[in-house]
Amino acid sequence: MNTVTQESTRQWQAADAQHFLHPFTDHAGLARKGARIITRADNIYLWDSEGNKILDAMSGLWCVNVGYGQQPLIDAATRQMKELPFYNTFFQTSHPPAIELAELLAQVTPPQFQHVFFTGSGSEGNDTIVRMVRRYWDIKGEPARKVIISRFNGYHGSTMAGSSLSGMKGMHDQGGVIPDITHIEQPHWFEHGRPQNLSREDFGLIAAGWLETKILEVGPERVAAFIGEPVQGAGGVMVPPSTYWPEIQRICDKYGILLVSDEVICGFGRTGHWFGCETMDVKPDLMTIAKGITSGYVPLGGVMVGERVARALIDEGGEFNHGFTYSGHPVACAVALANIRLIQQLDLVRHVREDIGPYLAQRFAELADHPLVGEVQSCGMMGAVQLVKDKAASTLFEPDLEVGMLCRAHCFGNGLIMRAVGDRMIVAPPLVMTRAQVDEMMALIRRCLDLTLAELHQRSWL
Amino acid sequence: MNTVTQESTRQWQAADAQHFLHPFTDHAGLARKGARIITRADNIYLWDSEGNKILDAMSGLWCVNVGYGQQPLIDAATRQMKELPFYNTFFQTSHPPAIELAELLAQVTPPQFQHVFFTGSGSEGNDTIVRMVRRYWDIKGEPARKVIISRFNGYHGSTMAGSSLSGMKGMHDQGGVIPDITHIEQPHWFEHGRPQNLSREDFGLIAAGWLETKILEVGPERVAAFIGEPVQGAGGVMVPPSTYWPEIQRICDKYGILLVSDEVICGFGRTGHWFGCETMDVKPDLMTIAKGITSGYVPLGGVMVGERVARALIDEGGEFNHGFTYSGHPVACAVALANIRLIQQLDLVRHVREDIGPYLAQRFAELADHPLVGEVQSCGMMGAVQLVKDKAASTLFEPDLEVGMLCRAHCFGNGLIMRAVGDRMIVAPPLVMTRAQVDEMMALIRRCLDLTLAELHQRSWL
Repeated sequence: MNTVTQESTRQWQAADAQHFLHPFTDHAGLARKGARIITRADNIYLWDSEGNKILDAMSGLWCVNVGYGQQPLIDAATRQMKELPFYNTFFQTSHPPAIELAELLAQVTPPQFQHVFFTGSGSEGNDTIVRMVRRYWDIKGEPARKVIISRFNGYHGSTMAGSSLSGMKGMHDQGGVIPDITHIEQPHWFEHGRPQNLSREDFGLIAAGWLETKILEVGPERVAAFIGEPVQGAGGVMVPPSTYWPEIQRICDKYGILLVSDEVICGFGRTGHWFGCETMDVKPDLMTIAKGITSGYVPLGGVMVGERVARALIDEGGEFNHGFTYSGHPVACAVALANIRLIQQLDLVRHVREDIGPYLAQRFAELADHPLVGEVQSCGMMGAVQLVKDKAASTLFEPDLEVGMLCRAHCFGNGLIMRAVGDRMIVAPPLVMTRAQVDEMMALIRRCLDLTLAELHQRSWL
Repeated sequence: MNTVTQESTRQWQAADAQHFLHPFTDHAGLARKGARIITRADNIYLWDSEGNKILDAMSGLWCVNVGYGQQPLIDAATRQMKELPFYNTFFQTSHPPAIELAELLAQVTPPQFQHVFFTGSGSEGNDTIVRMVRRYWDIKGEPARKVIISRFNGYHGSTMAGSSLSGMKGMHDQGGVIPDITHIEQPHWFEHGRPQNLSREDFGLIAAGWLETKILEVGPERVAAFIGEPVQGAGGVMVPPSTYWPEIQRICDKYGILLVSDEVICGFGRTGHWFGCETMDVKPDLMTIAKGITSGYVPLGGVMVGERVARALIDEGGEFNHGFTYSGHPVACAVALANIRLIQQLDLVRHVREDIGPYLAQRFAELADHPLVGEVQSCGMMGAVQLVKDKAASTLFEPDLEVGMLCRAHCFGNGLIMRAVGDRMIVAPPLVMTRAQVDEMMALIRRCLDLTLAELHQRSWL
């Protein structure tokens, strides 16, 4: 362990500002303030360069499903780096870690999935989806089917194609949107259903119906696929009504459209099943995977290719002209194998479904009594709290006030990593969490909500 | 070490065919033949599941610059995975490995580069280039500057934007090309200059002039950037005439267009300087990096951002809405640090420039006497041999004969990994190669050329 001092923190911050362009960051702003330097981690906790301990309720960035410091993952990486740190699988070669992982993925994913196409990230996975669904329809003799329908406030990565699938205006404004991708509104009951006094279930059917409206607008013969996250993650842990996904499935089936489940966040146990589509009870043709596949210890992503698409690509497609240097990287695959086996050994999926997920839901529901809280949602090990100005009327704060950021600053100052998406405070903690640790997290959340409330009163914003 | 048998090879092959969709592969064809299973590696050698030793003259896939089995890289990964296996750098946090690597990159890159934007791969790096150059021109008040000019037979990755920058028809046909990217012809003297009896130097100026023609065709006020690899890698180790890049620089400067050097293959010593742009004596505004940055041991990529663009983004841009979960991954950064320090300790850049590169050039030049060889090119630790049907007339083989693939099969059967790009046989071996190992590689190459020649006679194709 390095000796850490305020002096070394300032040195790190200065070097950081001089040379490192962070993702999704205002660099002039960050340079003025100075970055917080995270130096080590264990289980569900981080430590910064000044020795402060922080509860990481976001699992790094939705990825450290098994928690930090898991020796089997470290050992797997070390062993594989000694044996074969890299080899490609382009030119009729393969290697054991990629093959073993492909086999194991076929076991833990729903039965329609027997094949995997590896990438280096979820962004590359969703980018692959664009080429793959268009290639599928070319092979099937319907080349006009190029349009992919996605959702506003969905998140599917940051490559040009990934961010086009994503429904984030700020990204579309910096670089543009590629052709033949179009968006429908998200199934956000609090914003769209509640003001009209719709039940969640009725609203779910209406929101899914927006897909059919869009298909008819575009022309069914031009639509290739629909893509969505089972629970929108970066959009703010938006848990859809239970009626939503089955109706989406029905509409996709009606028009023969490929259904793509982006499991980058929901996959590998987070929602209480191995994959979010199982929790939502739908059967996608393709799934994007990343993050939880290695618990983030080494970068890896991919696309699970269902038999409908796989048979076309393999039996009728000839060469699929696509791939990445790190497709099936041996070290990443070895770590993924160790990670998935650990999830199995620790029975983490059942732990989420039957024990810690329901407990998190129960404790989250208790937050509903807080004066700042307008809505509480959770699904497995994901939770969201919608901050409101007027609880009775469910009035939102002016966005310019950035009340969510104000709350996040209190979290940050009190040893809790919680993310703000607008005024929606969200968590997605490691799946290994104990009940005592959930209690610890909930106490921190409540304290930060109280501090936020006090500050809002002090500023006369309430 | 596992006991390896023909039986286990068949089991690996069967599982591979059942579950693993390889990059850039005809899967029905591969399943019929069975993949070759690479199980371990050391220095510049691979071993397959049947115990055969293979000289890897392609450095994995242009990436294992320091060779396999380098303990400092393994130790760095193990140490970092124990300390902090993952943390993000999105929300005003940072960590020592990303900061230290950003500092070191600022030292080893040309002086205009003081900042790095990390990605997970070269594809994500080039995809970032598209968003970044468009964002730059938006900030500078010239939003019409959206067009990026690239080259046919250039390679810039496999995301939708990366493959649009790339000039590979087979990729464009499967998924399309995104708007506002256009291509010019490559500076390939053997194909375009030789038939017109142009000297290489004269041809280099003409080929660079195609950029100016394209700029005027598009309209200079609409052109954002030009991107190219200093030496085209995947296109077939195309070493441009010495006059080409300085003229490209002059044209970019004349119209104020950003110059982007894709250093994914040429970077980190391969051409005898730290970066290929130094070998070509040009000063790019942006550089894409990947592969050699970690010698492929862990996936990592990025964009080096020159001061012209960095100052706009930082001082005038506000938030740059772009980034990846694995941007600045701590384990990848720790391995990159160990890798770059090892390149420095072993003095590998000078080794390539002053010793092993010139020796490879000398030994490659000797291949010019072979009856099948029409042209030999090399640059640092990259080499290419153009196979021809008629040496005197420089007549090429019919592409349908796939003579390059026939030669590659002989290499594969004789313990040599050499790549075929059409009928161009190419190598890019690890930079740690000794003269004795160059001799060993050259003996294998000559043997495989002889075997190819014999087979062509036997088939009466000659």
